[in-house]
Amino acid sequence: LTSREPSPRIITLTTDFGLRDPYVASMKAVILSMEREVLLVDISHELPPHKILPAALLLREVCPRFPPGTIHVAVVDPGVGGARRPILVKIQEHFLIGPDNGLFGLLIRDFGFEGAWRIENSRYILPSVSRTFHGRDLFAPVAAHLAGGIRAEDFGPEIRDLQAIDLPSPKKEGGRLNGEILWIDHFGNCMTNISEEEALQWSGGEPFAVRVASRVMDGVCSSFDSVPLGECLAVFNSMRRLEIACNQSRADQTLGLDPGDPVVLEKA
Amino acid sequence: LTSREPSPRIITLTTDFGLRDPYVASMKAVILSMEREVLLVDISHELPPHKILPAALLLREVCPRFPPGTIHVAVVDPGVGGARRPILVKIQEHFLIGPDNGLFGLLIRDFGFEGAWRIENSRYILPSVSRTFHGRDLFAPVAAHLAGGIRAEDFGPEIRDLQAIDLPSPKKEGGRLNGEILWIDHFGNCMTNISEEEALQWSGGEPFAVRVASRVMDGVCSSFDSVPLGECLAVFNSMRRLEIACNQSRADQTLGLDPGDPVVLEKA
Amino acid sequence: LTSREPSPRIITLTTDFGLRDPYVASMKAVILSMEREVLLVDISHELPPHKILPAALLLREVCPRFPPGTIHVAVVDPGVGGARRPILVKIQEHFLIGPDNGLFGLLIRDFGFEGAWRIENSRYILPSVSRTFHGRDLFAPVAAHLAGGIRAEDFGPEIRDLQAIDLPSPKKEGGRLNGEILWIDHFGNCMTNISEEEALQWSGGEPFAVRVASRVMDGVCSSFDSVPLGECLAVFNSMRRLEIACNQSRADQTLGLDPGDPVVLEKA
Repeated sequence: LTSREPSPRIITLTTDFGLRDPYVASMKAVILSMEREVLLVDISHELPPHKILPAALLLREVCPRFPPGTIHVAVVDPGVGGARRPILVKIQEHFLIGPDNGLFGLLIRDFGFEGAWRIENSRYILPSVSRTFHGRDLFAPVAAHLAGGIRAEDFGPEIRDLQAIDLPSPKKEGGRLNGEILWIDHFGNCMTNISEEEALQWSGGEPFAVRVASRVMDGVCSSFDSVPLGECLAVFNSMRRLEIACNQSRADQTLGLDPGDPVVLEKA
Repeated sequence: LTSREPSPRIITLTTDFGLRDPYVASMKAVILSMEREVLLVDISHELPPHKILPAALLLREVCPRFPPGTIHVAVVDPGVGGARRPILVKIQEHFLIGPDNGLFGLLIRDFGFEGAWRIENSRYILPSVSRTFHGRDLFAPVAAHLAGGIRAEDFGPEIRDLQAIDLPSPKKEGGRLNGEILWIDHFGNCMTNISEEEALQWSGGEPFAVRVASRVMDGVCSSFDSVPLGECLAVFNSMRRLEIACNQSRADQTLGLDPGDPVVLEKA
Repeated sequence: LTSREPSPRIITLTTDFGLRDPYVASMKAVILSMEREVLLVDISHELPPHKILPAALLLREVCPRFPPGTIHVAVVDPGVGGARRPILVKIQEHFLIGPDNGLFGLLIRDFGFEGAWRIENSRYILPSVSRTFHGRDLFAPVAAHLAGGIRAEDFGPEIRDLQAIDLPSPKKEGGRLNGEILWIDHFGNCMTNISEEEALQWSGGEPFAVRVASRVMDGVCSSFDSVPLGECLAVFNSMRRLEIACNQSRADQTLGLDPGDPVVLEKA
């Protein structure tokens, strides 16, 4: 399994490393030292430290938008140096490289996978692998070698049992659909675990109210400016998920919301 | 109107999206899926949310420094999904893509424009355009198609009435020139709305004092180290604007300054 | 002295400018206006403002990992516009460009240098050099010209006396090795000035304890998960330096640590 994509190959990077330390640049330096014909694209390096779910949500949303043949390196890796396996996964013409800790769980749930390999061939990783920084010593070199034409099956033995991840799903209860807040974005918009499809299926297209904090909102608006400046609303966002937002201000602060807080749909 | 620039074409990105969420990477993924022969350059993604003036100032300063043929995508877009028009503007061999809300107002004020078009040809945008994320669904695809050789006039009808922006200009009053603080940078330096040219014209080259907070500074220094460590000074900065700074410390904190605060020049 | 590296040449950028202002993008615009065949890589723009030591540590760690022929531009430049010299240094097939203020001191200490030049040839810098932003007006153009094939010796006269930097080194005192914290990373891990080699040489391979804040840790662990979640440990990090960390939480906050705080090794 190799890619016949035109060069340069795209390699994306997603981590919880931040951008102040040597970590991200060291990964880029290792990749470029091994393979110059690549295009490096940062997805994000500001994920919450050590947390798998936000990283899995971000990868699920962004990776499929890249062209076929893209190599995605993701390192949110609280178990680095421990027992978790380093893996390479092929999924719909994309390659995923990172720890087997659920990071790729939502991509795999939604798209399946064509193959997965445990990375262990020492030929394709740095001679001396630290126990605290596999991003630099192991995942970056594998990405560079894969971009350079090494076949997926050459990195190690095929595996089938990948670590899954639990995404809390909305629960029906009487005339309600009980959801929760998954992600608060840069603008303070609060994305829930209720997809547009789930809401539609549950409501049968009938009107419903959205209850969050102490507010009740009558239905879902189509864009932010459906309400006056500073007012809150429910909207299906660009990821087709129900979101609590305010027109040009922060819903998280206005309503005092945190990840995990309940958002309830109620039939009218 | 197309560009005959050498490939790869440069596409710059400027937003208020931050770098933690899927937004910026989704725009890059869309562009690279449609057109691989581009060089993506981030100008900034940390602009103050929903504010047009700082974005317009940044674009005015940075865009003209890029080579001819560069495509600049800018998305600070509080009215997304509402009535404001998506536009493409050609200005001095550069292309600007974004909402018609004044973002490009300072560039247009200073350089004029060669042509402007309302983006509406559905052939060049994503099949399903969300009402909350035109950066991904509309502006990114237009940039990719423009880089790929589609002519500006193919994106929609030509328009002439572009949204302007008010930049507060310094006011003469007796022996004074009343200005204000426009931008506080990463170092705490406070840039005013008084350009070097305006100060010179007003003063006729005669000495003047700078009054800010409760301080009076005798004239303008030529570099930060003209004063002792920690002391404040006035300087014409690298954008040729009057700036209140401190030598190796933060002027905003030392003097308690915010955007909009007055800075007054007084003849000696 | 030019580089025979394959095009595009890599130019890395390291500053304390942050990513919100026009500064970093202006440097990139200047470089790309003069030389398109380059690959720009950000090392970090979030270094502590005006501080030389953290920048020197970061450059020492990251630059040597890039391929030969890479051009490294670094601008942490509290003395901009003053007497400090702008320099170009060649070191192990890498080129360094920036102010002569100790930024490159650790690289030079550990690798020596093959040549150094004071940048003063006005042909290769912008026509009008501001006194507050040499990154844009002087260092960026020199990087572009060097990438374009201008020889190092054409930028100005050779010099030999480069500014050194003091890195506090660990001190032996009785049965102790007294070190200190140099760098606190994005995860709150606290890196010390004690290298693995120094610790080994001092201890002769015998067991030792690590004393920091009010804690005493028995020896050095091999990976973060050697201790329970939230517990602190000492580890040799991926830069082969002694580091105080906590398993999936912040050591700096848990132990109340700041740069400069003592970390002491004691023989058992």
